[in-house]
This record gives sequence, structure tokens and C-alpha cells, in this order.
Amino acid sequence: MSGTAYGIGVGPGDPELITLKGLRHLRACPVIAYPAPEGGESLARRIVATHLPGGQTEIVIGVPMSGERFPTGAIYDRAASEIGGHLMAGRDVAVLCLGDPFFYGSFMYLFERLAAAHTVVVVPGVTSVSAASAALCLPLAARNESFAVIPAGLDDTEIERRLATCDAAAILKLGRHAGRVRALLTRLGLEAHYIERASVAEERRLKLADVDPSSAPYFSLLLVRRVA
Amino acid sequence: MSGTAYGIGVGPGDPELITLKGLRHLRACPVIAYPAPEGGESLARRIVATHLPGGQTEIVIGVPMSGERFPTGAIYDRAASEIGGHLMAGRDVAVLCLGDPFFYGSFMYLFERLAAAHTVVVVPGVTSVSAASAALCLPLAARNESFAVIPAGLDDTEIERRLATCDAAAILKLGRHAGRVRALLTRLGLEAHYIERASVAEERRLKLADVDPSSAPYFSLLLVRRVA
Repeated sequence: MSGTAYGIGVGPGDPELITLKGLRHLRACPVIAYPAPEGGESLARRIVATHLPGGQTEIVIGVPMSGERFPTGAIYDRAASEIGGHLMAGRDVAVLCLGDPFFYGSFMYLFERLAAAHTVVVVPGVTSVSAASAALCLPLAARNESFAVIPAGLDDTEIERRLATCDAAAILKLGRHAGRVRALLTRLGLEAHYIERASVAEERRLKLADVDPSSAPYFSLLLVRRVA
Repeated sequence: MSGTAYGIGVGPGDPELITLKGLRHLRACPVIAYPAPEGGESLARRIVATHLPGGQTEIVIGVPMSGERFPTGAIYDRAASEIGGHLMAGRDVAVLCLGDPFFYGSFMYLFERLAAAHTVVVVPGVTSVSAASAALCLPLAARNESFAVIPAGLDDTEIERRLATCDAAAILKLGRHAGRVRALLTRLGLEAHYIERASVAEERRLKLADVDPSSAPYFSLLLVRRVA
């Protein structure tokens, strides 16, 4: 009997924002796997730390420190191989994913390596966009409005094109792009609300004008609404 | 002591896809409120039925049957007034919201009526888009890709404009628009995956070509990926 790999969305940061289904699989699997910056703490593991039953085998997927660079395939080849070994031995594996596994998550790199030979189940989770909306008390979209999710790493022309065809948007992963994106939004006359680390104790909500662009973390985003 | 209104995202349909936080507030509130089609069953209440402790006061927010028409403000005026009465009497109220409260949810109409005078807390939830992605095993977006959420009720020109500026998209609330949207996607040469009632027992996944446009429900959507 081969094991199942579960890609579990652990939610945006608050340990209470995991789903019942995610928690059930997380606790039942004899093996858990999670990304961690090399030499640093895994945020995904920290989120679920209080939920862990103890005694699970843990696989750390070491990824380069910068949230901006995208790790090479070799990292996921190795992790998929290690996870696959447990699956072939009949052990289920829970892979912890920040937010939702298939929404800007690295889980998809494991999924494409595991799915051909193994059973893989994805447990969806609450995204940082929903958490930001709740914390800022700003609805994302309603009725026939369209909503765009835009990574801040795109260049100004591309961001402007996407903003031109939506009613509201989230601009994700600000990090070192915060100053440039703020200048762009100011030029376009768009209002935006800034939040970093939505739903955790360190959460900060700021007016865009008050953001220090030199210190915006990778896990920060803007909610933008077009005023027609 | 005034009560707190909780807008609780109960998730996309599977009762296990509610969060721990949503469940905690749902069970602790002496009053729950939820939308229901006039003369019909409330989907939001059905999702949480097995979680309810019993003995709660229930407020049914009757909305017109069609998922296409947007109810008038009078319905929400009345519901907000009834909820407000409980809050002023010191009773917390849990408002059940399908998916995420601020993502195409009717909760925002209550929020805008309650927030000035009362404490309102939003508990984010898993959206139907994340549930669809998990069920179809299709990642939504990665790296610097942008993602668009587009209601099917927009006309073809508007949908085409939005699709032109994203890497992937979800087209929501197909219902009676299914045939028209399929014709548009075929003309644009875009591949799409259809799902209805993601995450519940009645879930159906189909190739777009096999969808019967005359029977697509309101709770159906397409995931679209642009192939450059």
C-alpha cells in the first residue's frame, strides 16, 4: 500500500486559520515536510507548531534565503525523491504550505514531480489576500467586479496594464519593490492600503504614504481599488 | 457591554474546510445569521449544520431566488437592524458566509450597515477558487504570474480585455452565461477546466466541451490558463 502526499494549506499565519481538514491530515501523517530558508526557521512549521502531536519524521526543504529568487529544480528533485521514498514505504506525508498550496506556493513544484507516480491530495487554505481583506476591513470584490492579483515584481508597464482592466487588485510580495510600486500608484492616482504579515502578532497596517519602502518585507501586500 | 458581529467564512462547501477560528466563533455565539433563498435551504447553514451546538437563535436573511439578481438594500437594512438589536443586548452574532466573507460575499452589505455602530470582526475563509484549484489539481499562479478573477456576467468584450492582461484566470458564477463564455473561450483559443460545487459530494468536473450550458449552476466556475 503506497502512501498519500497531502499538500496542506496552513493559512496566512494565524494558527487558528488552518482548516479542520488540514489539521486532521497534518496530525495523522507520520511524516511532515516544509520549506525553510537555509539556516532559518520555517514559517509554515511555526504556524502549525502548537498543532503537532510529536514524534513525526520531519523533512526540511532548504530554499535560498531571498524570497525574490526562485530556487532551482534540484532542490525539489531531492525533496520529491525523499518524500517519494516515504510514500513507497506506505507512509503518508503532509507537506505544509503557507496560505493555499496552489496560490503562489512552492508546493506546485513538488506536485509536478510527485503526481505521476503517487497519490497527491491538495487541501486548500486561506490566502494572505483574504487575511489582508479581513484585517483591513476592505471587501475585495462584489457582484460583477473583477479582481486582479499582481506580483510586485512585474515591471511598471505590466502592473499598469493589469490595473487598467480590473475593479480592484492585490499587489503581492512587495519587498524591495515597495518604493517603485508606491510611485506608480501615486502617478496613477490610485488609493491603496498596505499590510504586512496579515493575521499574525507582527501584523502592521499602514497608509501607503507612511510605508518605509526600505523595510517592506516579502510578506506584505497592497489592496487597491479603482475609483471610476 | 455590546456584542460583536463575526462575519465567518465557512469555506466552499466541505464542512471540514471551515477554519478553527471560524468554528470557535460559530459555536460560541448565541445568535447565528445566514442568507437563504426565499422558501429554500441555506447552503451556508447546511455546510455548518454538523458543527452547531444547538440552542442558538437563528436569523434567516431571505434573499430572492435568482443568484443573478442582486437583492435590494431593504433586505440588508432589516437584517442589520435585527442583528444590531442582539449586539446592543450584549449578544455576539455569527454571520455565516460562503467561501470568504469579503470575496463576492453578501456579508459586505451587512458590514457597511453594522461597522459604524458595532464591533465587526471578519474571519477569512477558503474561497471556491482555491477549492476548484485543489479539486482540479491545477495550480492557480506562481512566481510573477498574474491572476484574474472575472464574473461570467460581464459582457464578452470586458471578459476578453481582462483575459488579455493575465496569465491565468477564474471565471466565476457561470450559470446562464456558460454557453456564451464557452463560445468566447473557443474563439480566443483558450483552454479551460470546468467545475461545479467544488469540494462537496455533488462536485462535477468536466471538459469545457462536455458542459451542458443549459444546466450549469450558479456555483460553477472555469479555470483558464493562457498559453503564450
